[in-house]
Amino acid sequence: MDKSRSSDAWSLRGLIPDNHPRRESLIVREKLVEALENGILVAQGLIAHGRGECFDYLIGEKTQSFAELAEKVAVAMLLLAKNPVISVNGNMAALVPKEIVELAREVNAKVEVNLFYRSEERVKAIAEELKKNGAEKVLTEGDATIPELFSERRKVSKEGMYSADVVLLAMEDGDRTQALVNMGKKVIAIDLNPLSRTSLSATVTIVDNVIRAFPNMIRFAREMKEVRREEIKKLIDQFDNKKNLSESLKFISSRLIQLSEDL
Amino acid sequence: MDKSRSSDAWSLRGLIPDNHPRRESLIVREKLVEALENGILVAQGLIAHGRGECFDYLIGEKTQSFAELAEKVAVAMLLLAKNPVISVNGNMAALVPKEIVELAREVNAKVEVNLFYRSEERVKAIAEELKKNGAEKVLTEGDATIPELFSERRKVSKEGMYSADVVLLAMEDGDRTQALVNMGKKVIAIDLNPLSRTSLSATVTIVDNVIRAFPNMIRFAREMKEVRREEIKKLIDQFDNKKNLSESLKFISSRLIQLSEDL
Repeated sequence: MDKSRSSDAWSLRGLIPDNHPRRESLIVREKLVEALENGILVAQGLIAHGRGECFDYLIGEKTQSFAELAEKVAVAMLLLAKNPVISVNGNMAALVPKEIVELAREVNAKVEVNLFYRSEERVKAIAEELKKNGAEKVLTEGDATIPELFSERRKVSKEGMYSADVVLLAMEDGDRTQALVNMGKKVIAIDLNPLSRTSLSATVTIVDNVIRAFPNMIRFAREMKEVRREEIKKLIDQFDNKKNLSESLKFISSRLIQLSEDL
Repeated sequence: MDKSRSSDAWSLRGLIPDNHPRRESLIVREKLVEALENGILVAQGLIAHGRGECFDYLIGEKTQSFAELAEKVAVAMLLLAKNPVISVNGNMAALVPKEIVELAREVNAKVEVNLFYRSEERVKAIAEELKKNGAEKVLTEGDATIPELFSERRKVSKEGMYSADVVLLAMEDGDRTQALVNMGKKVIAIDLNPLSRTSLSATVTIVDNVIRAFPNMIRFAREMKEVRREEIKKLIDQFDNKKNLSESLKFISSRLIQLSEDL
Protein backbone atom coordinates (compact mmCIF):
# COMPACT_ATOMS: atom_id res chain seq x y z
CA MET A 1 0.00 0.00 0.00
CA ASP A 2 1.20 3.52 -0.55
CA LYS A 3 2.97 5.52 2.14
CA SER A 4 0.32 8.18 2.68
CA ARG A 5 -2.17 5.57 3.74
CA SER A 6 0.21 3.66 5.93
CA SER A 7 1.32 6.81 7.71
CA ASP A 8 -2.36 7.58 8.32
CA ALA A 9 -2.58 4.32 10.14
CA TRP A 10 0.63 4.84 12.05
CA SER A 11 -0.30 8.25 13.28
CA LEU A 12 -2.78 6.61 15.61
CA ARG A 13 -0.25 4.75 17.71
CA GLY A 14 1.24 7.78 19.36
CA LEU A 15 -2.25 9.12 19.99
CA ILE A 16 -3.64 6.25 22.03
CA PRO A 17 -3.65 7.49 25.64
CA ASP A 18 -2.40 5.05 28.31
CA ASN A 19 -5.81 4.97 29.95
CA HIS A 20 -7.86 4.57 26.75
CA PRO A 21 -10.53 1.94 27.43
CA ARG A 22 -9.82 0.22 24.11
CA ARG A 23 -6.03 0.68 24.19
CA GLU A 24 -5.12 -3.00 24.01
CA SER A 25 -7.46 -3.71 21.13
CA LEU A 26 -6.22 -0.60 19.27
CA ILE A 27 -2.60 -1.72 19.66
CA VAL A 28 -3.49 -5.18 18.38
CA ARG A 29 -5.09 -3.55 15.33
CA GLU A 30 -1.93 -1.58 14.65
CA LYS A 31 0.11 -4.80 14.85
CA LEU A 32 -2.12 -6.29 12.17
CA VAL A 33 -1.81 -3.26 9.92
CA GLU A 34 1.96 -3.57 10.33
CA ALA A 35 1.73 -7.25 9.37
CA LEU A 36 -0.24 -6.26 6.26
CA GLU A 37 2.53 -3.88 5.30
CA ASN A 38 5.21 -6.51 5.98
CA GLY A 39 3.55 -9.06 3.74
CA ILE A 40 2.63 -11.39 6.61
CA LEU A 41 -1.10 -10.73 6.40
CA VAL A 42 -3.52 -10.32 3.49
CA ALA A 43 -6.40 -7.85 3.60
CA GLN A 44 -8.90 -10.64 4.29
CA GLY A 45 -7.01 -11.35 7.50
CA LEU A 46 -8.03 -7.92 8.78
CA ILE A 47 -11.69 -8.64 8.10
CA ALA A 48 -11.34 -11.95 9.91
CA HIS A 49 -9.76 -10.14 12.83
CA GLY A 50 -12.67 -7.72 12.98
CA ARG A 51 -15.13 -10.60 13.19
CA GLY A 52 -13.08 -12.02 16.03
CA GLU A 53 -13.06 -8.67 17.84
CA CYS A 54 -16.81 -8.66 17.87
CA PHE A 55 -17.09 -12.13 19.39
CA ASP A 56 -14.30 -11.31 21.83
CA TYR A 57 -16.34 -8.36 22.98
CA LEU A 58 -19.34 -10.63 23.44
CA ILE A 59 -17.42 -13.02 25.69
CA GLY A 60 -16.20 -10.08 27.77
CA GLU A 61 -12.64 -10.02 26.36
CA LYS A 62 -11.62 -12.55 29.03
CA THR A 63 -10.83 -16.25 29.08
CA GLN A 64 -14.11 -17.68 30.34
CA SER A 65 -14.39 -21.06 32.05
CA PHE A 66 -15.48 -22.86 28.86
CA ALA A 67 -12.35 -21.57 27.10
CA GLU A 68 -10.06 -22.50 29.96
CA LEU A 69 -11.41 -26.04 29.98
CA ALA A 70 -10.90 -26.37 26.21
CA GLU A 71 -7.36 -25.00 26.54
CA LYS A 72 -6.52 -27.64 29.17
CA VAL A 73 -7.97 -30.43 27.05
CA ALA A 74 -6.09 -29.12 24.02
CA VAL A 75 -2.78 -29.18 25.89
CA ALA A 76 -3.55 -32.69 27.12
CA MET A 77 -4.16 -33.78 23.54
CA LEU A 78 -0.97 -32.14 22.31
CA LEU A 79 1.07 -33.79 25.09
CA LEU A 80 -0.26 -37.26 24.26
CA ALA A 81 0.07 -36.82 20.50
CA LYS A 82 2.60 -38.73 18.41
CA ASN A 83 3.11 -36.02 15.80
CA PRO A 84 1.48 -32.77 16.90
CA VAL A 85 1.66 -29.78 14.57
CA ILE A 86 0.87 -26.12 15.13
CA SER A 87 -0.49 -24.65 11.92
CA VAL A 88 0.41 -20.96 11.56
CA ASN A 89 -1.41 -18.39 9.43
CA GLY A 90 -0.87 -14.65 8.96
CA ASN A 91 -3.03 -13.54 11.86
CA MET A 92 -1.27 -15.87 14.30
CA ALA A 93 2.18 -14.83 13.09
CA ALA A 94 1.20 -11.18 13.51
CA LEU A 95 -0.12 -11.55 17.04
CA VAL A 96 1.62 -14.44 18.84
CA PRO A 97 4.85 -15.40 17.03
CA LYS A 98 6.84 -15.82 20.26
CA GLU A 99 4.10 -17.77 22.00
CA ILE A 100 3.73 -20.18 19.06
CA VAL A 101 7.40 -21.07 19.33
CA GLU A 102 7.18 -21.40 23.11
CA LEU A 103 4.13 -23.66 23.09
CA ALA A 104 5.64 -25.82 20.35
CA ARG A 105 8.71 -26.30 22.54
CA GLU A 106 6.65 -27.17 25.64
CA VAL A 107 4.54 -29.82 23.90
CA ASN A 108 7.20 -30.91 21.43
CA ALA A 109 5.17 -29.93 18.37
CA LYS A 110 6.26 -29.04 14.87
CA VAL A 111 5.45 -25.62 13.47
CA GLU A 112 4.08 -25.33 9.94
CA VAL A 113 3.05 -22.34 7.88
CA ASN A 114 -0.37 -22.89 6.32
CA LEU A 115 -2.12 -20.20 4.37
CA PHE A 116 -5.51 -19.90 2.79
CA TYR A 117 -4.17 -17.28 0.39
CA ARG A 118 -0.85 -19.04 -0.12
CA SER A 119 2.01 -17.35 -1.90
CA GLU A 120 5.65 -18.34 -1.54
CA GLU A 121 6.52 -14.78 -0.55
CA ARG A 122 4.09 -14.79 2.32
CA VAL A 123 5.09 -18.28 3.46
CA LYS A 124 8.67 -17.01 3.60
CA ALA A 125 7.77 -13.81 5.47
CA ILE A 126 5.91 -15.80 8.13
CA ALA A 127 8.64 -18.43 8.49
CA GLU A 128 11.17 -15.62 8.97
CA GLU A 129 8.99 -13.98 11.60
CA LEU A 130 8.80 -17.28 13.52
CA LYS A 131 12.54 -17.81 13.27
CA LYS A 132 13.14 -14.28 14.50
CA ASN A 133 11.10 -15.34 17.52
CA GLY A 134 13.22 -18.40 18.25
CA ALA A 135 11.85 -21.15 16.00
CA GLU A 136 14.60 -23.54 14.92
CA LYS A 137 12.64 -25.28 12.21
CA VAL A 138 9.54 -24.13 10.36
CA LEU A 139 7.80 -26.42 7.88
CA THR A 140 6.88 -24.60 4.67
CA GLU A 141 7.16 -27.25 1.97
CA GLY A 142 3.64 -27.77 0.69
CA ASP A 143 4.83 -31.13 -0.68
CA ALA A 144 1.59 -32.98 0.10
CA THR A 145 -2.08 -32.15 -0.42
CA ILE A 146 -5.21 -32.36 1.70
CA PRO A 147 -7.80 -34.46 -0.14
CA GLU A 148 -11.16 -32.77 -0.95
CA LEU A 149 -9.63 -29.30 -1.32
CA PHE A 150 -8.55 -27.51 -4.45
CA SER A 151 -6.25 -24.50 -5.17
CA GLU A 152 -3.22 -23.42 -3.18
CA ARG A 153 -4.92 -23.88 0.15
CA ARG A 154 -4.73 -27.65 -0.06
CA LYS A 155 -0.92 -27.67 0.16
CA VAL A 156 0.60 -29.00 3.37
CA SER A 157 3.89 -30.46 4.47
CA LYS A 158 4.24 -34.26 4.29
CA GLU A 159 6.30 -34.32 7.45
CA GLY A 160 3.91 -31.92 9.19
CA MET A 161 0.16 -31.58 8.86
CA TYR A 162 -0.17 -34.37 6.32
CA SER A 163 1.09 -37.01 8.75
CA ALA A 164 0.10 -35.27 12.00
CA ASP A 165 -2.29 -36.96 14.43
CA VAL A 166 -3.11 -33.70 16.26
CA VAL A 167 -3.25 -30.26 14.61
CA LEU A 168 -3.64 -26.97 16.45
CA LEU A 169 -4.95 -24.17 14.26
CA ALA A 170 -6.60 -20.78 14.72
CA MET A 171 -9.01 -18.67 12.65
CA GLU A 172 -9.06 -21.40 10.02
CA ASP A 173 -11.34 -21.76 7.03
CA GLY A 174 -14.21 -24.19 7.67
CA ASP A 175 -13.51 -26.34 4.60
CA ARG A 176 -9.93 -26.90 5.68
CA THR A 177 -10.83 -27.81 9.24
CA GLN A 178 -13.47 -30.24 8.03
CA ALA A 179 -11.06 -31.81 5.52
CA LEU A 180 -8.44 -32.36 8.23
CA VAL A 181 -11.01 -33.97 10.52
CA ASN A 182 -12.10 -36.17 7.62
CA MET A 183 -8.47 -37.30 7.28
CA GLY A 184 -8.83 -38.77 10.80
CA LYS A 185 -6.87 -36.06 12.62
CA LYS A 186 -7.76 -34.55 15.95
CA VAL A 187 -8.14 -30.85 15.32
CA ILE A 188 -7.84 -28.22 18.03
CA ALA A 189 -9.28 -24.90 16.81
CA ILE A 190 -8.91 -21.50 18.42
CA ASP A 191 -11.87 -19.52 17.11
CA LEU A 192 -13.80 -16.72 18.79
CA ASN A 193 -16.93 -17.53 16.82
CA PRO A 194 -18.54 -20.56 18.48
CA LEU A 195 -20.79 -20.98 15.44
CA SER A 196 -18.19 -20.97 12.69
CA ARG A 197 -17.85 -24.13 10.62
CA THR A 198 -14.36 -24.54 12.04
CA SER A 199 -15.69 -24.35 15.60
CA LEU A 200 -18.44 -26.83 14.85
CA SER A 201 -16.24 -29.36 13.09
CA ALA A 202 -13.13 -29.27 15.33
CA THR A 203 -12.42 -31.95 17.94
CA VAL A 204 -11.68 -29.32 20.56
CA THR A 205 -12.80 -25.71 20.08
CA ILE A 206 -11.21 -22.94 22.12
CA VAL A 207 -13.52 -19.91 22.08
CA ASP A 208 -10.89 -17.41 23.10
CA ASN A 209 -8.58 -14.78 21.65
CA VAL A 210 -5.19 -16.21 20.53
CA ILE A 211 -3.45 -13.52 22.53
CA ARG A 212 -4.86 -15.09 25.71
CA ALA A 213 -5.15 -18.72 24.58
CA PHE A 214 -1.46 -19.19 23.79
CA PRO A 215 -0.08 -17.89 27.10
CA ASN A 216 -2.68 -19.97 28.96
CA MET A 217 -1.75 -23.10 27.06
CA ILE A 218 1.95 -22.56 27.68
CA ARG A 219 1.21 -22.36 31.40
CA PHE A 220 -1.01 -25.45 31.34
CA ALA A 221 1.65 -27.40 29.41
CA ARG A 222 4.19 -26.64 32.14
CA GLU A 223 1.78 -27.59 34.92
CA MET A 224 0.59 -30.74 33.21
CA LYS A 225 4.05 -32.23 32.88
CA GLU A 226 3.78 -33.16 36.56
CA VAL A 227 0.47 -34.94 35.95
CA ARG A 228 0.20 -38.70 35.33
CA ARG A 229 -0.59 -39.86 31.81
CA GLU A 230 -3.84 -41.55 32.94
CA GLU A 231 -5.07 -38.30 34.47
CA ILE A 232 -4.31 -36.43 31.27
CA LYS A 233 -6.14 -39.04 29.24
CA LYS A 234 -9.17 -38.80 31.53
CA LEU A 235 -9.36 -35.05 30.92
CA ILE A 236 -9.65 -35.70 27.19
CA ASP A 237 -12.17 -38.53 27.55
CA GLN A 238 -14.50 -36.48 29.72
CA PHE A 239 -14.59 -33.52 27.36
CA ASP A 240 -17.70 -32.88 25.24
CA ASN A 241 -17.00 -30.24 22.59
CA LYS A 242 -20.63 -29.63 21.58
CA LYS A 243 -21.62 -29.16 25.20
CA ASN A 244 -18.75 -26.75 25.75
CA LEU A 245 -19.69 -24.73 22.65
CA SER A 246 -23.23 -24.60 23.89
CA GLU A 247 -21.92 -23.16 27.19
CA SER A 248 -20.19 -20.38 25.31
CA LEU A 249 -23.39 -19.49 23.44
CA LYS A 250 -25.39 -19.45 26.66
CA PHE A 251 -22.77 -17.21 28.22
CA ILE A 252 -22.93 -14.69 25.35
CA SER A 253 -26.69 -14.79 25.34
CA SER A 254 -27.09 -14.09 29.03
CA ARG A 255 -24.51 -11.33 28.77
CA LEU A 256 -26.58 -9.67 26.04
CA ILE A 257 -29.74 -9.94 28.14
CA GLN A 258 -27.85 -8.27 30.98
CA LEU A 259 -26.59 -5.50 28.69
CA SER A 260 -30.05 -4.91 27.23
CA GLU A 261 -31.46 -4.55 30.74
CA ASP A 262 -28.76 -2.01 31.55
CA LEU A 263 -29.93 0.20 28.68
CA MET B 1 0.09 -3.10 -1.43
CA ASP B 2 2.21 -5.16 -3.78
CA LYS B 3 0.78 -7.06 -6.71
CA SER B 4 1.41 -10.57 -5.47
CA ARG B 5 -0.77 -9.95 -2.45
CA SER B 6 -3.53 -8.25 -4.34
CA SER B 7 -3.67 -10.98 -6.94
CA ASP B 8 -3.93 -13.47 -4.08
CA ALA B 9 -7.04 -11.66 -3.03
CA TRP B 10 -8.43 -11.37 -6.54
CA SER B 11 -7.98 -15.00 -7.31
CA LEU B 12 -10.87 -15.71 -4.98
CA ARG B 13 -13.51 -13.93 -7.01
CA GLY B 14 -13.58 -16.37 -9.88
CA LEU B 15 -13.60 -19.22 -7.40
CA ILE B 16 -16.76 -18.35 -5.48
CA PRO B 17 -19.38 -20.79 -6.73
CA ASP B 18 -22.85 -19.36 -7.50
CA ASN B 19 -24.40 -21.48 -4.79
CA HIS B 20 -21.80 -20.80 -2.08
CA PRO B 21 -23.69 -20.15 1.17
CA ARG B 22 -21.51 -17.12 1.93
CA ARG B 23 -21.29 -15.84 -1.64
CA GLU B 24 -22.75 -12.41 -1.00
CA SER B 25 -20.58 -11.74 2.01
CA LEU B 26 -17.49 -12.92 0.09
CA ILE B 27 -18.28 -10.56 -2.79
CA VAL B 28 -18.72 -7.68 -0.36
CA ARG B 29 -15.30 -8.49 1.10
CA GLU B 30 -13.74 -8.39 -2.34
CA LYS B 31 -15.32 -4.98 -2.94
CA LEU B 32 -13.64 -3.73 0.22
CA VAL B 33 -10.27 -5.14 -0.75
CA GLU B 34 -10.69 -3.36 -4.08
CA ALA B 35 -11.50 -0.13 -2.22
CA LEU B 36 -8.33 -0.59 -0.16
CA GLU B 37 -6.33 -0.87 -3.35
CA ASN B 38 -8.06 2.17 -4.86
CA GLY B 39 -7.25 4.36 -1.88
CA ILE B 40 -10.87 4.68 -0.77
CA LEU B 41 -10.48 2.54 2.32
CA VAL B 42 -7.76 2.28 4.97
CA ALA B 43 -6.81 -1.03 6.55
CA GLN B 44 -8.73 -0.20 9.74
CA GLY B 45 -11.88 -0.04 7.62
CA LEU B 46 -11.49 -3.74 6.89
CA ILE B 47 -11.31 -4.56 10.60
CA ALA B 48 -14.41 -2.44 11.19
CA HIS B 49 -16.16 -4.34 8.41
CA GLY B 50 -15.27 -7.64 10.03
CA ARG B 51 -16.82 -6.53 13.30
CA GLY B 52 -19.94 -5.57 11.41
CA GLU B 53 -20.05 -8.95 9.66
CA CYS B 54 -20.17 -10.68 13.01
CA PHE B 55 -23.08 -8.61 14.26
CA ASP B 56 -24.82 -8.98 10.92
CA TYR B 57 -24.56 -12.71 11.32
CA LEU B 58 -26.08 -12.41 14.79
CA ILE B 59 -29.12 -10.52 13.50
CA GLY B 60 -29.61 -13.15 10.81
CA GLU B 61 -28.25 -11.05 7.91
CA LYS B 62 -31.73 -9.60 7.42
CA THR B 63 -33.44 -6.30 8.14
CA GLN B 64 -35.27 -7.12 11.34
CA SER B 65 -38.35 -5.19 12.55
CA PHE B 66 -36.32 -2.99 14.93
CA ALA B 67 -34.10 -1.93 12.02
CA GLU B 68 -37.02 -1.28 9.70
CA LEU B 69 -38.66 0.94 12.31
CA ALA B 70 -35.43 2.92 12.81
CA GLU B 71 -35.03 3.29 9.04
CA LYS B 72 -38.54 4.75 8.75
CA VAL B 73 -37.93 7.17 11.60
CA ALA B 74 -34.59 8.15 10.07
CA VAL B 75 -36.21 8.95 6.74
CA ALA B 76 -38.90 10.95 8.52
CA MET B 77 -36.20 12.95 10.29
CA LEU B 78 -34.29 13.56 7.06
CA LEU B 79 -37.46 14.70 5.29
CA LEU B 80 -38.31 17.21 8.02
CA ALA B 81 -34.74 18.50 8.40
CA LYS B 82 -33.67 21.99 7.34
CA ASN B 83 -30.12 21.06 6.41
CA PRO B 84 -29.69 17.28 6.35
CA VAL B 85 -26.26 15.88 5.54
CA ILE B 86 -25.14 12.37 4.67
CA SER B 87 -21.64 11.83 6.02
CA VAL B 88 -19.64 9.42 3.85
CA ASN B 89 -16.62 7.37 4.94
CA GLY B 90 -14.52 4.80 3.09
CA ASN B 91 -16.65 1.79 3.94
CA MET B 92 -19.83 3.50 2.75
CA ALA B 93 -18.21 4.68 -0.47
CA ALA B 94 -16.95 1.16 -1.12
CA LEU B 95 -20.31 -0.51 -0.59
CA VAL B 96 -23.18 1.87 -1.42
CA PRO B 97 -21.91 4.82 -3.51
CA LYS B 98 -24.92 4.78 -5.84
CA GLU B 99 -27.42 4.43 -3.01
CA ILE B 100 -25.91 7.35 -1.08
CA VAL B 101 -26.45 9.62 -4.07
CA GLU B 102 -29.97 8.30 -4.59
CA LEU B 103 -31.05 8.73 -0.98
CA ALA B 104 -29.54 12.23 -0.88
CA ARG B 105 -31.62 13.13 -3.91
CA GLU B 106 -34.84 11.69 -2.41
CA VAL B 107 -34.54 13.56 0.89
CA ASN B 108 -32.76 16.59 -0.50
CA ALA B 109 -29.63 16.09 1.61
CA LYS B 110 -26.08 17.25 1.07
CA VAL B 111 -23.31 14.67 0.76
CA GLU B 112 -20.06 15.21 2.66
CA VAL B 113 -16.89 13.14 2.85
CA ASN B 114 -15.86 12.65 6.47
CA LEU B 115 -12.94 10.49 7.40
CA PHE B 116 -11.48 9.34 10.67
CA TYR B 117 -8.13 8.77 8.98
CA ARG B 118 -8.38 11.86 6.82
CA SER B 119 -5.96 12.49 4.01
CA GLU B 120 -6.64 14.80 1.08
CA GLU B 121 -5.88 11.95 -1.32
CA ARG B 122 -8.51 9.74 0.21
CA VAL B 123 -11.09 12.54 0.41
CA LYS B 124 -10.54 13.09 -3.29
CA ALA B 125 -10.79 9.39 -4.16
CA ILE B 126 -14.11 9.10 -2.32
CA ALA B 127 -15.55 12.31 -3.80
CA GLU B 128 -14.66 11.01 -7.27
CA GLU B 129 -16.32 7.68 -6.56
CA LEU B 130 -19.51 9.49 -5.52
CA LYS B 131 -19.43 11.70 -8.60
CA LYS B 132 -18.93 8.65 -10.79
CA ASN B 133 -22.16 7.40 -9.22
CA GLY B 134 -24.12 10.52 -10.08
CA ALA B 135 -23.39 12.99 -7.27
CA GLU B 136 -23.45 16.58 -8.54
CA LYS B 137 -21.85 18.14 -5.50
CA VAL B 138 -19.76 16.55 -2.78
CA LEU B 139 -18.60 18.56 0.22
CA THR B 140 -14.95 17.94 1.03
CA GLU B 141 -13.73 21.26 2.44
CA GLY B 142 -12.90 20.59 6.07
CA ASP B 143 -13.15 24.37 6.62
CA ALA B 144 -14.76 24.08 10.07
CA THR B 145 -14.02 21.95 13.14
CA ILE B 146 -16.08 19.87 15.53
CA PRO B 147 -15.43 21.12 19.08
CA GLU B 148 -14.04 18.57 21.60
CA LEU B 149 -12.12 16.61 18.95
CA PHE B 150 -8.50 16.88 17.99
CA SER B 151 -6.46 15.77 14.92
CA GLU B 152 -7.67 15.51 11.35
CA ARG B 153 -10.89 13.82 12.30
CA ARG B 154 -12.39 17.02 13.66
CA LYS B 155 -12.50 18.64 10.22
CA VAL B 156 -15.93 19.15 8.67
CA SER B 157 -17.48 21.38 6.06
CA LYS B 158 -19.02 24.66 7.30
CA GLU B 159 -21.81 24.40 4.77
CA GLY B 160 -22.36 20.71 5.57
CA MET B 161 -22.00 18.88 8.85
CA TYR B 162 -21.00 21.96 10.80
CA SER B 163 -24.32 23.69 10.19
CA ALA B 164 -26.46 20.58 9.66
CA ASP B 165 -29.45 19.91 11.91
CA VAL B 166 -29.64 16.21 10.96
CA VAL B 167 -26.63 14.03 10.10
CA LEU B 168 -26.81 10.49 8.74
CA LEU B 169 -23.63 8.51 9.30
CA ALA B 170 -22.55 4.88 9.34
CA MET B 171 -19.82 2.91 11.12
CA GLU B 172 -18.69 6.10 12.81
CA ASP B 173 -16.25 6.53 15.66
CA GLY B 174 -17.99 6.94 19.03
CA ASP B 175 -16.20 10.19 19.93
CA ARG B 176 -17.32 11.83 16.73
CA THR B 177 -20.92 10.75 17.09
CA GLN B 178 -21.01 12.00 20.67
CA ALA B 179 -19.41 15.30 19.70
CA LEU B 180 -22.00 15.87 16.96
CA VAL B 181 -24.83 15.11 19.38
CA ASN B 182 -23.26 17.54 21.86
CA MET B 183 -23.38 20.20 19.15
CA GLY B 184 -27.19 19.83 19.26
CA LYS B 185 -27.54 17.84 16.05
CA LYS B 186 -29.87 14.92 15.52
CA VAL B 187 -27.66 12.01 14.53
CA ILE B 188 -28.88 8.98 12.62
CA ALA B 189 -26.35 6.16 12.87
CA ILE B 190 -26.24 2.96 10.85
CA ASP B 191 -24.25 0.56 13.01
CA LEU B 192 -24.53 -3.22 13.25
CA ASN B 193 -23.22 -3.22 16.81
CA PRO B 194 -26.11 -2.17 19.06
CA LEU B 195 -23.65 -1.64 21.92
CA SER B 196 -21.10 0.61 20.20
CA ARG B 197 -20.69 4.10 21.60
CA THR B 198 -22.05 5.45 18.32
CA SER B 199 -25.17 3.29 18.66
CA LEU B 200 -25.69 4.34 22.25
CA SER B 201 -25.21 8.07 21.67
CA ALA B 202 -27.08 8.51 18.36
CA THR B 203 -30.60 9.95 18.20
CA VAL B 204 -31.74 7.14 15.92
CA THR B 205 -29.72 3.93 15.61
CA ILE B 206 -30.25 1.63 12.66
CA VAL B 207 -28.90 -1.83 13.54
CA ASP B 208 -28.62 -3.06 9.98
CA ASN B 209 -26.08 -3.54 7.22
CA VAL B 210 -25.64 -0.44 5.00
CA ILE B 211 -26.16 -2.61 1.93
CA ARG B 212 -29.74 -3.22 3.12
CA ALA B 213 -30.38 0.02 5.04
CA PHE B 214 -29.79 2.36 2.10
CA PRO B 215 -32.14 0.63 -0.38
CA ASN B 216 -34.79 0.40 2.35
CA MET B 217 -34.48 4.09 3.18
CA ILE B 218 -34.70 5.09 -0.48
CA ARG B 219 -37.95 3.12 -0.72
CA PHE B 220 -39.34 4.64 2.49
CA ALA B 221 -38.43 8.14 1.31
CA ARG B 222 -40.46 7.61 -1.87
CA GLU B 223 -43.42 6.21 0.03
CA MET B 224 -43.36 8.89 2.72
CA LYS B 225 -43.63 11.77 0.29
CA GLU B 226 -47.31 10.95 0.08
CA VAL B 227 -47.69 11.13 3.88
CA ARG B 228 -48.81 14.26 5.75
CA ARG B 229 -46.21 16.20 7.70
CA GLU B 230 -48.07 15.65 11.01
CA GLU B 231 -48.01 11.90 10.47
CA ILE B 232 -44.30 11.98 9.77
CA LYS B 233 -43.70 14.04 12.89
CA LYS B 234 -45.70 11.58 14.98
CA LEU B 235 -43.49 8.72 13.80
CA ILE B 236 -40.46 10.58 15.14
CA ASP B 237 -42.10 11.59 18.43
CA GLN B 238 -43.18 8.05 19.22
CA PHE B 239 -39.75 6.54 18.66
CA ASP B 240 -37.66 5.46 21.65
CA ASN B 241 -34.09 4.69 20.57
CA LYS B 242 -32.99 2.97 23.80
CA LYS B 243 -36.03 0.73 23.71
CA ASN B 244 -35.38 -0.13 20.07
CA LEU B 245 -31.73 -0.95 20.80
CA SER B 246 -32.85 -3.13 23.64
CA GLU B 247 -35.13 -4.98 21.19
CA SER B 248 -32.16 -5.70 18.96
CA LEU B 249 -30.16 -7.13 21.87
CA LYS B 250 -33.06 -9.32 22.93
CA PHE B 251 -33.39 -10.55 19.38
CA ILE B 252 -29.72 -11.53 19.16
CA SER B 253 -29.82 -13.12 22.56
CA SER B 254 -32.83 -15.31 21.82
CA ARG B 255 -31.29 -16.26 18.50
CA LEU B 256 -28.16 -17.47 20.29
CA ILE B 257 -30.22 -19.48 22.77
CA GLN B 258 -31.96 -21.09 19.80
CA LEU B 259 -28.65 -21.85 18.10
CA SER B 260 -27.17 -23.30 21.28
CA GLU B 261 -30.17 -25.60 21.63
CA ASP B 262 -29.69 -26.74 18.05
CA LEU B 263 -26.16 -27.93 18.85
